[in-house]
Amino acid sequence: MTDTLILSIDAMGGDHAPESVLEGVALSAKQHDDVFFFLFGNEEKIAPLTEKYGLDPKCYKIHHTTDVVRMDAKPSQILRSGRETSMWKSIMAVRNGYAKAVVSAGNTGALMAMSKICLGTLPGIDRPAIAGILPSVTGPIVVLDLGANTECDAQNLVEFSLMGEVLYQILFGVKEPSVALLNIGSEHTKGREEIREAATALTEMGDKINFQGFVEGNDIGAGKAQVIVADGFSGNIALKTLEGTVKFVSYALKKEVKESWLSMFGFLMAHPSLARFKKKYDPRLYNGAMFLGLKGISVKSHGGADAFAFSCAIEAAIKMARKDLCTKIKDEAATVLNMSALDDTSAP
Amino acid sequence: MTDTLILSIDAMGGDHAPESVLEGVALSAKQHDDVFFFLFGNEEKIAPLTEKYGLDPKCYKIHHTTDVVRMDAKPSQILRSGRETSMWKSIMAVRNGYAKAVVSAGNTGALMAMSKICLGTLPGIDRPAIAGILPSVTGPIVVLDLGANTECDAQNLVEFSLMGEVLYQILFGVKEPSVALLNIGSEHTKGREEIREAATALTEMGDKINFQGFVEGNDIGAGKAQVIVADGFSGNIALKTLEGTVKFVSYALKKEVKESWLSMFGFLMAHPSLARFKKKYDPRLYNGAMFLGLKGISVKSHGGADAFAFSCAIEAAIKMARKDLCTKIKDEAATVLNMSALDDTSAP
Repeated sequence: MTDTLILSIDAMGGDHAPESVLEGVALSAKQHDDVFFFLFGNEEKIAPLTEKYGLDPKCYKIHHTTDVVRMDAKPSQILRSGRETSMWKSIMAVRNGYAKAVVSAGNTGALMAMSKICLGTLPGIDRPAIAGILPSVTGPIVVLDLGANTECDAQNLVEFSLMGEVLYQILFGVKEPSVALLNIGSEHTKGREEIREAATALTEMGDKINFQGFVEGNDIGAGKAQVIVADGFSGNIALKTLEGTVKFVSYALKKEVKESWLSMFGFLMAHPSLARFKKKYDPRLYNGAMFLGLKGISVKSHGGADAFAFSCAIEAAIKMARKDLCTKIKDEAATVLNMSALDDTSAP
Repeated sequence: MTDTLILSIDAMGGDHAPESVLEGVALSAKQHDDVFFFLFGNEEKIAPLTEKYGLDPKCYKIHHTTDVVRMDAKPSQILRSGRETSMWKSIMAVRNGYAKAVVSAGNTGALMAMSKICLGTLPGIDRPAIAGILPSVTGPIVVLDLGANTECDAQNLVEFSLMGEVLYQILFGVKEPSVALLNIGSEHTKGREEIREAATALTEMGDKINFQGFVEGNDIGAGKAQVIVADGFSGNIALKTLEGTVKFVSYALKKEVKESWLSMFGFLMAHPSLARFKKKYDPRLYNGAMFLGLKGISVKSHGGADAFAFSCAIEAAIKMARKDLCTKIKDEAATVLNMSALDDTSAP
């Protein structure tokens, strides 16, 4: 029996909150009897839902909050006036050591800004990044940054590489996951200067990191590396393009099939395979954008997440907390970065 | 009956050249009896292929060349020593006014560098860009830049927008195609500075351009705008990610279906629909990356193109030449840019 893990939940964040959040917590609670939930939000709204979804009173505590971060609020505005929100309070529970991780389906920018301010950045890490998991031909891969930093220098990319490596180790138990930088060609002369510089630094680290060089956009689906690192702009473009392409292919395929009765019948016969396909690559399984580089664990669920998707984001938070992600990133940064080529340049 | 259009073909460029190039030319020649082909390359190798694929001697002329641009050659090296290559000579035919457009499946970097040097940039255009066509839920869309410029300023993005608009008008006969900038959010505060600046300039152009603001990666597949503009780095990442995603989905789907006989039988029944789907979205149909902003038409076929794919690249070149793309871009730049907000800042 493991120790009880306390998770902090922003019950008011997301398009379907608090309903889907509470239902998601209930799903997770059924699977983890060693997890206790702090639920931050409007008690009047939350209390009936804990009953509705059969949450055992021994596994949660409601912390009443009076304010909510609006989905369209600007991070700067929220930092000034958001201290009474469920989001802020749920992050503060991690900062103050009462909970090990926070999960929210609320406003991404606000969650990142608040997490940064409340939790602080780990020593050795200049800027936190957002990581996500994607399916690929060779298995799941970690991609970061997905949008926290629109512009990055070489040092940021090196730090993202180390953080992505540690995350992959923790999530999938692989000791030396392959790491690559996203670029527009695989030759070492290609791409932007900061990416080439980061590649040089990572190469010079030798066997301290399993660095594979550059990969291109098509190598994401091919799973050519287990950790793919990009600045937040390119990473976000890649992630969203991937989502849009899956939607387009599925739309176009359905449209053609619907034009013929025989095809529709054929697809019905293939239903078990299609259902297995859908289940395996259900985007909800990949829900949970993980903030890396902070002195605490903060996971962002998709705003439109349903209960199952939200429970998957909780699952990621549990793994990260149980395996002590933050300490591991700190240690990796200390051992690897102290010896890297970029270390000299980090002094003013 | 239209005038004879002369196209210049680099017969030695590409993985399967000159075989697939000649077969592609033959396919095009059958569809266009008003097009005449200059074939640049090794006469000994080309001549037998013209016979093999039944090219009418009245529709082509072989220009013997002694050198070839290697697929892995660096553009700088090629500019110094590539004057006897089939690629250089085929571009020079356009520069010297003997041909209206050049098509090559050779080394992209070399073709862009040589096209820039030989043809020159149009007045009003600072940097040429590479455009491609992609399928989407709402129909074909034009995306640029796909990799010519790894970094761009606001002025470049504005010029790409105008060039993409003209290309869309020419290819699809739409008078005011919708134009948008690729970004990581649709709010006007999102993304990099140069993108926000470009958006301001395009907005200030009023009804001179049908500017829709920002779109995200997922809006490419959704076809939210007819022309989507990005710097060459992000554009390339988006294009390649899209390609990789299609491959991954098709791989994963096939894998599941193959696990069950019933499903395979179902897929066989759905074959007509699947075949129609494949035909409609055959990537070969979208072959042909178009260089925009030059004083001549230069089209890059995929290096691995087969005959049909190569003929599609020729088809794009024919449309661009027949509709006089370069003059139209020049005129659009003159009328729109002279009045744009960015005009003042372009003076030193």
